[in-house]
Amino acid sequence: MRSRTYELDRAHVFHSWSAQAELDPMVITEARGSRVWDEDGREYLDFSSQLVFTNLGHGHPRVVRAIQEQAARLCTVAPQHATAPRSEAARLIASLAPAGLEKVFFTNGGADANEHAIRMARLHTGRPKVLSAYRSYHGGTQTAVNVTGDQRRWPNDTGTAGVARFFGPFRYRSEFHAESDEQECERALAHLRRTIEAEGPGTIAAVILETIPGTAGIMPPPPGYLPGVRALCDRYGIVLILDEVMAGFGRAGAWFALDRYDVVPDLITFAKGVNSGYVPLGGVIISDAIAATFAHTPYPGGLTYSGHPLATAAAVATIEAMTDEGTVAHADRLGREVLGPGLRELAERHPIVGDVRGVGAFWAVELVAGPDTREPLPVAATLEVVAACKRAGLLPFTTANRLHLVPPCNLSDEDAAAGLAMLDKALSPGC
Amino acid sequence: MRSRTYELDRAHVFHSWSAQAELDPMVITEARGSRVWDEDGREYLDFSSQLVFTNLGHGHPRVVRAIQEQAARLCTVAPQHATAPRSEAARLIASLAPAGLEKVFFTNGGADANEHAIRMARLHTGRPKVLSAYRSYHGGTQTAVNVTGDQRRWPNDTGTAGVARFFGPFRYRSEFHAESDEQECERALAHLRRTIEAEGPGTIAAVILETIPGTAGIMPPPPGYLPGVRALCDRYGIVLILDEVMAGFGRAGAWFALDRYDVVPDLITFAKGVNSGYVPLGGVIISDAIAATFAHTPYPGGLTYSGHPLATAAAVATIEAMTDEGTVAHADRLGREVLGPGLRELAERHPIVGDVRGVGAFWAVELVAGPDTREPLPVAATLEVVAACKRAGLLPFTTANRLHLVPPCNLSDEDAAAGLAMLDKALSPGC
Repeated sequence: MRSRTYELDRAHVFHSWSAQAELDPMVITEARGSRVWDEDGREYLDFSSQLVFTNLGHGHPRVVRAIQEQAARLCTVAPQHATAPRSEAARLIASLAPAGLEKVFFTNGGADANEHAIRMARLHTGRPKVLSAYRSYHGGTQTAVNVTGDQRRWPNDTGTAGVARFFGPFRYRSEFHAESDEQECERALAHLRRTIEAEGPGTIAAVILETIPGTAGIMPPPPGYLPGVRALCDRYGIVLILDEVMAGFGRAGAWFALDRYDVVPDLITFAKGVNSGYVPLGGVIISDAIAATFAHTPYPGGLTYSGHPLATAAAVATIEAMTDEGTVAHADRLGREVLGPGLRELAERHPIVGDVRGVGAFWAVELVAGPDTREPLPVAATLEVVAACKRAGLLPFTTANRLHLVPPCNLSDEDAAAGLAMLDKALSPGC
Repeated sequence: MRSRTYELDRAHVFHSWSAQAELDPMVITEARGSRVWDEDGREYLDFSSQLVFTNLGHGHPRVVRAIQEQAARLCTVAPQHATAPRSEAARLIASLAPAGLEKVFFTNGGADANEHAIRMARLHTGRPKVLSAYRSYHGGTQTAVNVTGDQRRWPNDTGTAGVARFFGPFRYRSEFHAESDEQECERALAHLRRTIEAEGPGTIAAVILETIPGTAGIMPPPPGYLPGVRALCDRYGIVLILDEVMAGFGRAGAWFALDRYDVVPDLITFAKGVNSGYVPLGGVIISDAIAATFAHTPYPGGLTYSGHPLATAAAVATIEAMTDEGTVAHADRLGREVLGPGLRELAERHPIVGDVRGVGAFWAVELVAGPDTREPLPVAATLEVVAACKRAGLLPFTTANRLHLVPPCNLSDEDAAAGLAMLDKALSPGC
């Protein structure tokens, strides 16, 4: 006999990215800090941050209180009117971005942020085409999923035009037969330049990239790559959109992952960590030049909940809490001193681990059938490891043959060590 | 000297559908029931329901309390897990829809609801094309705005393929030279049939229609139109999507506007009124046949906040409050006994009013330069009427040459009368 929540879910909830009859969802009844509980009272250390968004963990009192107070004061207002929380959230977010990106357009999430960024780029340049990476995820609406490179795009190619794709740098599975990081970087830039030339530079409105590709595998680019992309965009008058939906707001041990690289984009898209996902919110941070395009010409886009008071109040509280609690520096140190070394140590002992990479609270563990062939571990075997993690009390984020260890950015050192020990156990044969 | 909220808005907020340098937003600081206040303490009767979404008015205590309690209990969970508020919201929403539509896919708003409905239709039928009405609005993301018929689509035609458009019935500005409602209906159906035949029936996945077109002009269709569209869809194996984003959840004096017509669609999209817009939420209600397509084949779409606990808890509280308070029947009576007769009486006395139409809490007043020519009142003159409304203390929703009088569905008879008196004053020459 399953719970009413479970039964109603199976009867009436249509789930994302799933074969509906083959689901067996976990019922979550409670969550606090870095932990969640299921309906049987089992406790899990949440190294998924759900879908990589609870950067402040669950139930952060300051954010919860801000939502409660805003709900009582002024819960919802149409986007044409100004409200205090939206104004303050826009100021704070712009203050975290590079100089020269001063305006914020709020959306409900990352997908529509990318949809609008692409529109701004097309209208700003007067060009139709967008270039994106094959190893990428940019959202679930039609244009966002079509710009996405991975196989979830395939059934969705109908109905979209004007997108071309290229390969980014990824040393562990190089498309460029590179023998060093420098060579990978150089060859990836040459490949992008050739793609631009072959697509026609004058037809390309934007290059869209995740600063650090997330769901596609958490692949921090070599240091020279993004500056090289910026230079190509400058040469050809192309808008550079950096998607910080997953990598931003502390995840990469920096306010924006782009802070780790010598690059200033024209548009930054964000969501998730901006308010720890407590209320749906996303947005686009806009360069002065692109904002000027829409100073006296209407921007032809919008949405009912743009800058929703509840969502932006949660963002203000999140950014203030992260600032006061030093969350970003903590995540950076956690990556450098605890998670990075700990995962690399596991990789040395477990041949099933082919690669470990990441920064901050943003780590991928690539599981392989053999360390020499680098052949991805088959799905069934990967799911066995995931099940072993859960039995050990650890909730990772899983995609393809990878575990993503993406805990809250304010995870304690003790909980980090506990999570690594659970993972160690789950990776051990026969666990 | 303007307020900090205003100054920060102008410096950092990029607004929907606007020329950014030409804005002068009202700062809203307080809202209660059917009233809002600006930063100078001026009170307005809110006949806009903001963007036609606060169907329960502002600050409804039961919904506010549900948000506060859910925020404290379990603020956010990833969509792959089951939670009590999502399960219950899905059950309630399915229970309001026609039998045979039992599954709910939750989105963040109306635009992504329509994006996903179109995807479901394409994959269910294996066909590429979507037919939509020129007089329509379906959302701001790329495919949603391209399906939208109005001029906001024009700058957004790049990047989308597979949409064709037709004219719906609209007696006041008939495309069909009709001399009666019956003739308008018959000719509009013949036009749709011819469009389907000319586009190729076997290429068309879906017809998408607002049950009652909203922003495009609040045009309740003649009784036979939607059953006629249903019959055409059945004949050609086309999915019928009814967009209830604006018309649903009490707005039209019924739970869904489609309850007023003898029609059962395959997909219903919703947002706005489902939780009075207190937390961003939208969704698709899915027929058993379409759900079955994705029983063992994954649905290739999703989003981080699908069925967000805070948003769905607000939906549960909204639907329960509307049920217990008889809001839907109240809106129906308000339309039949107060707003309809009151607006028609104004039309008789003010030659600037060319047409009045609507149901429930969903009314359009069409302003014309001359009642005989039906020439739309120019924008500048329309904006003068809007300014006069505001001076009188009334906040209408404005689009093109129309005022939309779309107050909360629980507006009192007294406030309805007060609003009509303000409108009367605003329509009087020299006001």
